[in-house]
Amino acid sequence: MRIAVIPGDGIGGEVVPAVLPALELLGDHFGLGLSYRIFDWGAERWLAERVGLPPDALDLLASDYPAILLGALGDPRIPDMAHGRDILLGLRRGLDLYVNYRPFTPRGGDRTIALFRENTQGLYAGVGGTVSHGRHPAVAIDECVYTRETVEKFLRYCLRTLSESGRERVTLVHKSNAVPHTGRLWQGVFRAELAGFPGLVGSEEYVDSFCYHLVRDPSPYEGIVASNLFGDIVSDIGAALMGGLGLAASASVCPETGCALFEPVHGSAPDIAGRGIANPYAAATAVALMLDHLGHPRAAAPLRRALAAAARTDSATPDLGGHGTTGTFMADVMKRLEKD
Amino acid sequence: MRIAVIPGDGIGGEVVPAVLPALELLGDHFGLGLSYRIFDWGAERWLAERVGLPPDALDLLASDYPAILLGALGDPRIPDMAHGRDILLGLRRGLDLYVNYRPFTPRGGDRTIALFRENTQGLYAGVGGTVSHGRHPAVAIDECVYTRETVEKFLRYCLRTLSESGRERVTLVHKSNAVPHTGRLWQGVFRAELAGFPGLVGSEEYVDSFCYHLVRDPSPYEGIVASNLFGDIVSDIGAALMGGLGLAASASVCPETGCALFEPVHGSAPDIAGRGIANPYAAATAVALMLDHLGHPRAAAPLRRALAAAARTDSATPDLGGHGTTGTFMADVMKRLEKD
Ligand SMILES: CC(C)[C@H](C(=O)O)[C@@H](O)C(=O)O
Ligand SMILES: CC(C)[C@H](C(=O)O)[C@@H](O)C(=O)O
Repeated sequence: MRIAVIPGDGIGGEVVPAVLPALELLGDHFGLGLSYRIFDWGAERWLAERVGLPPDALDLLASDYPAILLGALGDPRIPDMAHGRDILLGLRRGLDLYVNYRPFTPRGGDRTIALFRENTQGLYAGVGGTVSHGRHPAVAIDECVYTRETVEKFLRYCLRTLSESGRERVTLVHKSNAVPHTGRLWQGVFRAELAGFPGLVGSEEYVDSFCYHLVRDPSPYEGIVASNLFGDIVSDIGAALMGGLGLAASASVCPETGCALFEPVHGSAPDIAGRGIANPYAAATAVALMLDHLGHPRAAAPLRRALAAAARTDSATPDLGGHGTTGTFMADVMKRLEKD
Repeated sequence: MRIAVIPGDGIGGEVVPAVLPALELLGDHFGLGLSYRIFDWGAERWLAERVGLPPDALDLLASDYPAILLGALGDPRIPDMAHGRDILLGLRRGLDLYVNYRPFTPRGGDRTIALFRENTQGLYAGVGGTVSHGRHPAVAIDECVYTRETVEKFLRYCLRTLSESGRERVTLVHKSNAVPHTGRLWQGVFRAELAGFPGLVGSEEYVDSFCYHLVRDPSPYEGIVASNLFGDIVSDIGAALMGGLGLAASASVCPETGCALFEPVHGSAPDIAGRGIANPYAAATAVALMLDHLGHPRAAAPLRRALAAAARTDSATPDLGGHGTTGTFMADVMKRLEKD
């Protein structure tokens, strides 16, 4: 099983190498036959050669690498994130990774809320343009585009996964009262697909009101399904409720091909990059999601246990309340994995 | 000064009549020469006659009613809120109320954050449609449309108002990394307009990351400017940080004509409608915003004081921790106003 590793920019280049030994150890221990190759896509290459996602990347990944581990993209020298968009949105759309799974466990709660975000269409479809008068745009348009086919396969996958995980409630986040065409498409498909899952009770909430309720009390929610932009916003609110971006990771999956990309939700954090204090928790959680996805939850479990335990010690990074570094934290995790 | 009063649906029909005596009392006391007329637009009329905003409404309001007080719209018998959209979005667009001002004071903080939402364009422009195969939509499109003219006049008004209120920081909420055409239009205009306000320091945040930071710690924010949809979402998060929708109100303004609509942010709350326990705080705050807007902050101040004091007593409604009703709460407010 070959894994493509893209450390990316900033702390991506610190946390990804830091968590690879854990992946290797678990791979060996459970006999998973994992191997990986590192790809240097990111800001440096973009600045040097204007190459984001190289032309042959999608073919190569689609044929040889069923799993991708991505660190983070973002560099102060590229303020509009052109390279990040090219690489990240290029991978999501080019590999049709239309399901983005972002679980989060609100602080103080004990249940993990399963958030599913559609990952390839909507306002991210890349359709739009501007009408200019002279040098200035006079009208700008971005189109939110959804095909029934994508909404259907996305929601069907989400409902099946939620139902298999034993969850009983699922909430559709939408805004059909103001954004009616795509909103009603989502509502229509949601209601139709729900009929195939009698064990699931569905509800629908306007995105504004949903965010209000989520911030006030996330406990009633079990599963959440949302379009691309709403899922993007809700997942960051989820990370805030979890106690920080430092803990959250996501999986972007194409259920048909099995191809999937795993990444911490945090960014490249240029403010702390290079100081050795980046928290590897989220990147290691991305590894755990990858192990789950590859069909080895037995390998993911000890990693999650070791992370949770190490996070409570002084070896943890400052953002977790420790006095450690990326290195001491992962050394602690490795020690626990070796003993486990 | 004539005021159009639209109680609307559900608790709108309870809180609006409850706060009108306070408006009358303050109008008399400060010699403001206010008068009002009640309009029956809402769910009942829609269900009976399919009339949301009557054909002559915009002309009548534009010529005779510089201020509008709206209760709430929403009725379980009209699940898609068609009448609410017709009336509310009809008023916003038809009267060009392009500035929506939603101040919020996070709990535990003492500063009010000034949130400005563009109110007429973006994904609310009403542009879009579907392509159908047979009876089912195959592709649905909603367009996010912004004209430079609207973004310019909106941001100029916001920056001037922020600067006049003594605020020093303003944050643009956008998503130009994924929604580039409108995103860059907003960024370009924001940077250009900021140059005219040397006392204001501007910053720009992606909407996802902004929501994350706002939920974790709203204290660094002073002024926020956002497009229609992002402002909609952020204002509900603001209400959650404030401790509930029961306290928040908004003003929708056309600075050129002076025409403005004031409303509580809460909905029609069908679950508690008819029980006399609806909290009139937000509707009364809408009245205070109206008095400010009409140039009478001296009349708004005692109302805000009376509300804050009454909210801490047992006469307040249950959601505020009291044992009172809409009636006892406003009776307490009136007693304080008479003494003040
Ligand atoms: C009812 C709905 C269309 C409206 C909006 O989205 O603008 C409401 O949420 C608001 O914020 O006033
Ligand atoms: C970097 C950006 C384009 C991206 C997104 O909006 O999808 C990020 O916020 C994310 O959530 O992965």
